[in-house]
Parts: sequence; C-alpha cells; structure tokens
Amino acid sequence: MNKIAYLGPEGTFTQQALIAFDPDAAACPMPSVDAALAAVGAGEVDAAMVPMENSLEGGVPATLDALADADSMYVVSEQLMPVTFVLAARPGTRPGDIRHVGTHPHAWAQVRRFARAVLPCAIHVPTLSTAAGAAALANGTAVYDATVCAPVAAANHGLEVLAEDIGDSKVAVTRFVLVAQRGALPAPTGADKTTVVLFQREDRAGGLLELLDQFATRGINMIRIESRPTGAAMGSYYFSIDFEGHVRDERVGEALMGLRRLAADMRFLGSYPRADRRRVPVEPATSDPSFIEARAWLRSLRRGNPQCQLPRGDAR
Amino acid sequence: MNKIAYLGPEGTFTQQALIAFDPDAAACPMPSVDAALAAVGAGEVDAAMVPMENSLEGGVPATLDALADADSMYVVSEQLMPVTFVLAARPGTRPGDIRHVGTHPHAWAQVRRFARAVLPCAIHVPTLSTAAGAAALANGTAVYDATVCAPVAAANHGLEVLAEDIGDSKVAVTRFVLVAQRGALPAPTGADKTTVVLFQREDRAGGLLELLDQFATRGINMIRIESRPTGAAMGSYYFSIDFEGHVRDERVGEALMGLRRLAADMRFLGSYPRADRRRVPVEPATSDPSFIEARAWLRSLRRGNPQCQLPRGDAR
Amino acid sequence: MNKIAYLGPEGTFTQQALIAFDPDAAACPMPSVDAALAAVGAGEVDAAMVPMENSLEGGVPATLDALADADSMYVVSEQLMPVTFVLAARPGTRPGDIRHVGTHPHAWAQVRRFARAVLPCAIHVPTLSTAAGAAALANGTAVYDATVCAPVAAANHGLEVLAEDIGDSKVAVTRFVLVAQRGALPAPTGADKTTVVLFQREDRAGGLLELLDQFATRGINMIRIESRPTGAAMGSYYFSIDFEGHVRDERVGEALMGLRRLAADMRFLGSYPRADRRRVPVEPATSDPSFIEARAWLRSLRRGNPQCQLPRGDAR
Amino acid sequence: MNKIAYLGPEGTFTQQALIAFDPDAAACPMPSVDAALAAVGAGEVDAAMVPMENSLEGGVPATLDALADADSMYVVSEQLMPVTFVLAARPGTRPGDIRHVGTHPHAWAQVRRFARAVLPCAIHVPTLSTAAGAAALANGTAVYDATVCAPVAAANHGLEVLAEDIGDSKVAVTRFVLVAQRGALPAPTGADKTTVVLFQREDRAGGLLELLDQFATRGINMIRIESRPTGAAMGSYYFSIDFEGHVRDERVGEALMGLRRLAADMRFLGSYPRADRRRVPVEPATSDPSFIEARAWLRSLRRGNPQCQLPRGDAR
Repeated sequence: MNKIAYLGPEGTFTQQALIAFDPDAAACPMPSVDAALAAVGAGEVDAAMVPMENSLEGGVPATLDALADADSMYVVSEQLMPVTFVLAARPGTRPGDIRHVGTHPHAWAQVRRFARAVLPCAIHVPTLSTAAGAAALANGTAVYDATVCAPVAAANHGLEVLAEDIGDSKVAVTRFVLVAQRGALPAPTGADKTTVVLFQREDRAGGLLELLDQFATRGINMIRIESRPTGAAMGSYYFSIDFEGHVRDERVGEALMGLRRLAADMRFLGSYPRADRRRVPVEPATSDPSFIEARAWLRSLRRGNPQCQLPRGDAR
Repeated sequence: MNKIAYLGPEGTFTQQALIAFDPDAAACPMPSVDAALAAVGAGEVDAAMVPMENSLEGGVPATLDALADADSMYVVSEQLMPVTFVLAARPGTRPGDIRHVGTHPHAWAQVRRFARAVLPCAIHVPTLSTAAGAAALANGTAVYDATVCAPVAAANHGLEVLAEDIGDSKVAVTRFVLVAQRGALPAPTGADKTTVVLFQREDRAGGLLELLDQFATRGINMIRIESRPTGAAMGSYYFSIDFEGHVRDERVGEALMGLRRLAADMRFLGSYPRADRRRVPVEPATSDPSFIEARAWLRSLRRGNPQCQLPRGDAR
Repeated sequence: MNKIAYLGPEGTFTQQALIAFDPDAAACPMPSVDAALAAVGAGEVDAAMVPMENSLEGGVPATLDALADADSMYVVSEQLMPVTFVLAARPGTRPGDIRHVGTHPHAWAQVRRFARAVLPCAIHVPTLSTAAGAAALANGTAVYDATVCAPVAAANHGLEVLAEDIGDSKVAVTRFVLVAQRGALPAPTGADKTTVVLFQREDRAGGLLELLDQFATRGINMIRIESRPTGAAMGSYYFSIDFEGHVRDERVGEALMGLRRLAADMRFLGSYPRADRRRVPVEPATSDPSFIEARAWLRSLRRGNPQCQLPRGDAR
Repeated sequence: MNKIAYLGPEGTFTQQALIAFDPDAAACPMPSVDAALAAVGAGEVDAAMVPMENSLEGGVPATLDALADADSMYVVSEQLMPVTFVLAARPGTRPGDIRHVGTHPHAWAQVRRFARAVLPCAIHVPTLSTAAGAAALANGTAVYDATVCAPVAAANHGLEVLAEDIGDSKVAVTRFVLVAQRGALPAPTGADKTTVVLFQREDRAGGLLELLDQFATRGINMIRIESRPTGAAMGSYYFSIDFEGHVRDERVGEALMGLRRLAADMRFLGSYPRADRRRVPVEPATSDPSFIEARAWLRSLRRGNPQCQLPRGDAR
C-alpha cells in the first residue's frame, strides 16, 4: 500500500484528487505544499499530491516555487478534478436564516452568480481555506451561518448540503500532480507531458524567445507557461513550462539539451502520462525514426572511409 | 487636488506608494482592487493606485485580471516601493513575551530567517492581510502577541516597533501602478514602458512565439511577461506583458499593429514613464528616424511617376 | 507603336519573347543586356526585353548584375517562353552527313540525350550563342555541318529543320522581363510579383535570416532567391529576390520598409503581374483590411482623449 | 606522387591553383569540370582541382551542378588565387599595332578600365576561354592582334607580355576546390569549413528560412549561399552552402541532422580547412564541451533510478 502525503486539511479538493488516484493509499494530510514535499524528500512517504494550477485562478505559487527549488523529486502523474462547490450549513439551518457566508475569497468569487441570485443579502466572511471555513462552522467557532466548500469537506464535518454544484463556471477544473523521489521516471505512453523550470540568462538578448524556439524548432507544443519571480530582483523571472512529449522522445531529448546549453539554469521536473490521454500527432521530420535515421547518417559521415587517402599539398 | 483610490486598508504598502506619488492627494481606501478600479470607471476618483507585482511573490492576480477586463482605463504611472517589515506589538510588550505572531503567510515567509534567529519558538497565526493583523492586535481581538507588518501599519494603529527592516531579502520591492480613465496618455519621455494584454489565437501553431516575435523583430525588449488563465478552459491563457517604449514610438506602433493583426485579442493598457527613468539605447535600424525615412521612401515608390508610360503587350 | 530593345541577335529566344509580348513593337536587337538597358536609360527605346533566368541554367548573371546597378528602371512585365531546340542544317544536308555540330555549350548540354541517340558520332563545336552558330552555318563560314538552335533562328537564316523539339527536358523554360523607365509602376492585379535586390549589412549577425524573416513574418512567400557576388570581396554577396505581392499591398509595403531599415542597401526593381496569373491566398492576419484596421486602431490609441486629465504626482 | 586532374587547358588559373597546392603533382588537364570529376570517380586520378567561385563573377555553375550530383566525392581542400590578367601578343608586336583583342568576355569585362585608357580604339573579339584565346594567337589562327589572359597562359604559349596586372579590381580572387573520393575526410583543424547542398521540401511553408535557421539556432555562420535551379521546374532551386565548422564539431553535427530531417534532400560535400586559416570564436552555449555536457545530463535523466518505485494509481 502506498503512503501518500497531500495538501490538507481533510476535505479539500486535493484529498479528492488523491482518492481518485488511489483510493487505497494511506493518505497523510500536510499543513503546506512545502511540508508535503519535504515528507517525500525525507522518504517518509512514497509520494505527495499537490495542486498545480486551476483553470480559473492559475498556477499555485506555493507548488510552482517548491517544485522549482526541489532537487530530488519528479512529477510522476497528474490528476484533473472538476471544481464543484456546495452551500453547506449546520444541520437544521434554513436558507432564509443565512446572513453571513464564510469561505475563501477565491471560492466566493467562483459562486458570485449563485450568491447574487439565491442569497442576495448575504455578507461574505473571508476564511483561510474552504476546508477551514467548513471546520469552523462545524465546531461552532464561526461567526457565519453557512459556508461554500467542496462536497468532501461538508461530508467530513457533518454539515448539511443546502445546494449542490453552485459554481458559476461549469468548466472549472484543478490540476493536481503527484510528486515522487527523483529517478521515478514513468515509461513513455505516446501521450505524455514533460515539465521543466527555466531560468533565463540575463546577458542574452531575446532570451525567452530563444528558449521557446528550442521547442518550436523541433515541433513541440507548449501546453502551459507561467512566469514566477526568482526573488533576486524585480524583473527577474523563471518560467514553469509543460510541453508535449516524454524525455525519452528524440525531439524532446534534443530540445532539453538545447535548453540545458542556453538557459542560465534548467530543471527537469518529470515526464508523465497526460491525464487526458490525448495523443498528439508528430510530423515525420520530428518523429523518432527521423531523428534515429539522421543520427546513423551523421555517424557514417563522420566515420569516413579509412581506405581513402587524402592528396597532400603544401596548402595543408 | 487629486482624489485617488487605493487598495486599502490604511497602513498597507499601497498607501505608502500613493503618498510617495502624491502626498497631497485625497486618498480613498477601497476594500479590493476591483472596487478601486470601479471607482475610476465611475468617475468617482481621478485615479487608483493598486499593486501590480512583487519581486518575491510575483504578479498580483486581482490586479492583472481586473486590468485585463477593464475596457476604459490606462496605466499612467508606476511606483516602486521597497518592501520593509517591522515586528510590532502593543506598547509594553517585551520580546520575551512573544509566543504567537499574527501576520499574512506571505509576510511570514519573507521574515523566516529573522523569526528563526530571534523568535525560534514563536508560532505563526495566519491573518488575511498584514494590515488586518496589525488592526486586530491593536483593538484587542487578536489571539497573538505580536505582528509582522509595514511600518505605516504599526504607526497607524499605535503599535510599538520592536524590530525594524526584518525581511530576509533586502531587495524586495513591490511595483504599484496608477490607473486612470482611458485616454489619459502620458507623453513620451524617452524612458517609457508599455503594458498590454494578449490573448492567443487557438488555431495558430506556435502562437506565443509568433506574438513575442513582434517585439523581437523590431528590437523591443520585454520587461515582464506573466501568464494568467482566461478561465475558458484549462490551458487557455492570456499574457500580461510590459515592454520598453511608448505607443508613440514608431517601432512600438508597428509592433502593436502586428499584435493587433495576429492575436485573438489584444488590449493596450497604457504607455507611461519608467519608475527607474532608465533610457534604453535604440539601435539605428529601429529608431524613429529610420522608420520615418522608410515610410517616405515607400510612399515615393508607390506614387510612381505619372509621366512614364508602360509598354502595352498582349501579355497583360 | 512601342519601340522595344532586346538582347539580340535576331533569332534568339529573347526575340521570340518580345514577339509574344507585342508582335507589333518595333524591335531593336542589341549586342548585350547592358546595351539594351542603356537604350532604356537614354530614352532611345520605350523598354527592353532581357532574359532573367532559365529553369535549367539558372539566373542570367548579366541581367541580374545590370538590374542591380540600374538606378532608373523597373521590371514592368515578365514573359515565360518554353525553350525548344531544333537540329538545323543548310538545305540538302542529309542526317548521315553530319560529323560536326556547332552550337552554344548550354544548348549542347540540353540536347545530350538526343545527340547520343541520333548522332552518336557527331563532334561538338562550341559557338558563342545559338543564333551565332546558325548564322555562321548559313553564311558558309562554319566548320560544322549542322547546328542546334531556336526555331526562329533556323527560319531567319533559311536553314532546314531536320528534327524538332530535341531538348532532353520538356519543361525547360526561360523567363524574360520587360524593363522600362523607373516610375512606370503597373497597377496591382491581385496576382503580382515584386523584385528587389538586397545587400546585407556586414556587421549584423544572422543577416540573411533577419532579412528573409521580413517576408516570412508577414506571410509573404519568396519565389526566387539568387545570390551574386558584389565584387567587393570574396564572400560578399547581394541577393536578387522575387516574392509574391505588389508594393501597394500593405504586407509588402511594411516588409519593404523593414528591409529598407535593416539592409545595407535595398533596391526596388518593380511590381508587375505574374506571367502565370496565379492568385495566392492571403491569410486574414496579413490581408490589406487587417493592416488598415490595425493602423486605424493605433491612430486612435495615439490620439488619446484630450478631455482626460492625468493625475500629477511628484513621481513624474 | 599525386595524380591530380584539373579543368584545362594548360595555362588557366586552375592550373596555377593546382601548382600552388602541390607543385610536384602529376597534373592532368581535362576538357570540362564533369570530365575532371569523372576521372576522380573512376579512380583514374587521386583528386581534381576545379574552380568553385569567383569574387567578381560568382559561382561556377558547372562545378556547383556537378558537385550537387556527385554521389561519391568530397571537397577536401580549397585554394584561393588572385585573378591577374596580362595583355600579351606575339613577340615583336607593338602596342600601337593592336586593333583587335581576343579574350573571353568575362576577362574583357574585368579589364574594361585599362582598355579604355590604353587601347581606346581596340575592338573586342570573344573567345571561348582566355587560354584558348592565347593558344589561337600563338598558333596563328587568330584574327586579333593581342589577347588578355593569365600570366601562365602567356608563358605557356611563348607570348610576350605587354602589360601586367591590368585587371580593374585589385581584389579579384577565384576559389578552387580539390575534390577527392568520398570518405576522404580531413581532420578538424579548428578553422574549418563545411559544404552542403540543400533541396527544399515543396510542401513546407517558409522552407528556406526553416533550413537556414538550423545554422543560426546553433550559432553557425554561413559563408556562402548560392541558389541553382534543379531543372525540375521554373522556381525549383537547390542551395549550395558553405558554413563555418567541421562535421565532427558537435554544433555542426546537430545542424546537419536537423537539415537531414527537414530538407527534401541534403548532400554533405565535405569538411576541410579554410584557406584563410581564420579561427572563428564559438560561444560557450554552442561549444563542443557544452554539447557533450548536455548529452551526459540527458543520458542520466533518461536512465532514471531503478531503485525508485512509482506509486501506482488507477489513474495510470
């Protein structure tokens, strides 16, 4: 049985992602992404499930920064979870009683239309997370009458669900990644994704363009690019990038070598199967057979023909 | 006298930026970036000062998204403020008494080294903002003994400063922008910056590269690029970009026209003087005189010479 | 009636091209491309028909160099002529009598297969042109029994055609251009071609690539590119380039301005209808309406809104 | 002793290049470039010296086309020869006697200024080559009084030199290449040049740009690019290209593999020492050590770590 850490507390979407990935795993909630990854690094758990990005809110800075710093771990799987919210309250609460709603500001932003229609007079009370909001409501320390949270949080805390699936967007989805010790490299499946972190060299004009060209020139599509400050100075960024393909694909290997040469620093964060299982067609000129044929051809050129003698001239 | 909204509450770094910009302005704190910009849109204030990015934490999503959506306003100025933190407590508190420290998690992350050295046993209590943490400590509702906040917050709330400039990074800086009604276009100064928002066309391969090439091919340096989800679907991004130059510069004008043609959507968010006043050298081939000469030359080519008669053949 | 010079002597493919263009023109044979163009420059003729390139032999250096130097003339039309050869001799000559065949080496190279099959023992005698070879055979000064020439040369000199269309390639074609005084700019037809001469700047790395990118980045296809030495030093080239579109097309105008800015020198040699009348589809992003819309949009941005007042701060 | 064919007849600049390369070689004049290369192919000679390009006249089509077709030979050396002309006549001829001058039109073009100044009334009689012009003058079959030829041709034919170094350009130089059987690959010297022939794929937009980018993206400078018709159709070209570096250099190897994948066809025509011995600095990111380090790094990534076990989920 796997022992897998996750960003807690219990009742978050991250726990739901972990259950979807492996319902039998021993799941260990952690107080932060850093703590979850530290448990992987220390060998205390086999892996950690952490949120990477949300289709409405964007990248999760804590995860992006922690992975950029992590020296010894790889992403080995990804999990997409639709983000659904429920309106929950202590048993016996009637909708008409709701004056204050406690939840995380992001969640409140995502149910704005529902709130306007159904609870036009309710006042929002910000909480530190949706799960914390549910917990406080359940244990009686909250100053609000209802909460907006994940279905699992309502269930965990014995809250009653007053309305289901109340999010304004029906396409909202969060992407979670499973992180394991470095070296755990999933085999190519033909529908893979690779994640890297790139640091630009300050002294090269057109730096980002030159780096992205390493993908384009080899027919590799980028899926995600996010910039994050390095913290060194205003205007100093690193880039967190997902792109199509596996490190064992020829075109990906050559692109990674190009980035290795050109970037100030580049960290490989793993190749793993795409959650959507989508196979992207590869054009002949950048297919594995094409690279392999070209390499064999180059080798034969370089070898030359030892029987042949070069004419000697005083010009050489 | 200007009436300028800002992201409140009083005591934040945003207020400090506004005071640095115009100490005599009538400053109106607003509960959110959205509210501050709405006041500009409604004509209730002359402008709004909002945080755009932080050298440690990156872009401020609320501002980036609000500006990307704003149809009727421009950035007209930027303000850089060093981020400095103080350890503050109610008067009479001795360092030895401090068991719990309440502050925003970002702030706590930025004073980690100080905390480890000086308050090794203190427990962190998360608050919604540094200013809110100071306010709660001052009004006696807090469950902690000290707070980490901006100097102005300590002063506003009558707290005693126990330690100054306790941030781990001495280069931390936040960039604020002043937003006014559209049409307010500052004149070029020779040391300007332009901000745009770009939406990629889904159906164009190599989309981002093609867009960034509009800058590179005209010798324009990018200063900042941030990706943000559009919310339409996972993997759908827009890009918030700052680059060197003013919309009235020839090379910038041609680049903006190229982006207008190639991007799914592009919003111009203003040209304004750089806070650092740095003039970037422009190479001859992309200088204004070079563009102007080329345009005059093209005009003369196109005009042709009406005296000349073309031979007529049956081939035409 | 037009008076048109051409590269003589009578009986060349150039004369055929001129007749195809305008059978009624007063045709003046000239001893060289330089002489034909000089007659245009001096106003002695309305235009000159000269060979530009051959599908087997490539560009005609004399024409490329003369046009690159010409300051005062434009290409205004092009003419494609299939290259067909006949085997001709003085009347009464029988195939079995042919021991020596006089013709230009290029022509001999193009009938190699025919010669091997039909005249396996014939010896080639080089002549200065195919027309000169026919003339010498007709006037009795030749030391050979037959000649390979254009049908028109055989007819002009009263030679008997022993075999028709004897060229090895059935797709051989020569492209001729009609050159007139500068200023004679044919109107756009929607199926046009533009010719320019580019000189690279020595001090710019990646020079040629940067120049060609001016076409690619605006969706303009190159049709022909030929390099020619400038004569200044070994390795110093200029490029003679044909590309799709007319100088009055927006995308072409912007590309030409870009080349004007970036190249050491650039000469516009004319925009004129394609001989093949082929209309090339233009994608929306680089169409005239797209450029025109973008320019109007930029103008409105730059104009700003004079009613709006900018807040004043000490930061500006 | 080497047996080396060259483009004859005796007395040409090609013979001079061969003597400069190896004064002791057994030199075999050949009637054409094709014949010289055929002798290499048949093993009748060790190598062939042929003209490749002239700083005034450009590429030598016969050589470019023959090399593009040659399947079994490489360029192994290059030789630069200044082009100098003499005015020569039969012994006893006085300058005042000269009414007609026989020489190749290219040579006549290169001494135009001299002729105008010294022989203003002389009439030019075209000959098939400068050497043939000298031979005819010597053997009494010429209809002219003097000839313009290479110093060696005057000497070979016992002509008297009336004026030396009469070329208008003092920088005219011809580049000759020594061609040997394939497999004869000279070792890298650090100052090398590589020659290839590229055929574009018809079905790829921006074809030439994509091919040239294979050099640029790896920091490789092009030295020469010439387009030549393939003969298949008007507008169908191949490119003859020289660039810096040796096939055994890492950056060159990767570029060649890229061209192999992307071009319709690509022929490697040899890597050989530059005649000018110039070493071009290679930037760190494209140096051999940088490529080698990147390859080792990639290998370690791909190998992964067999001790690490991947967590198993139903998601995989």
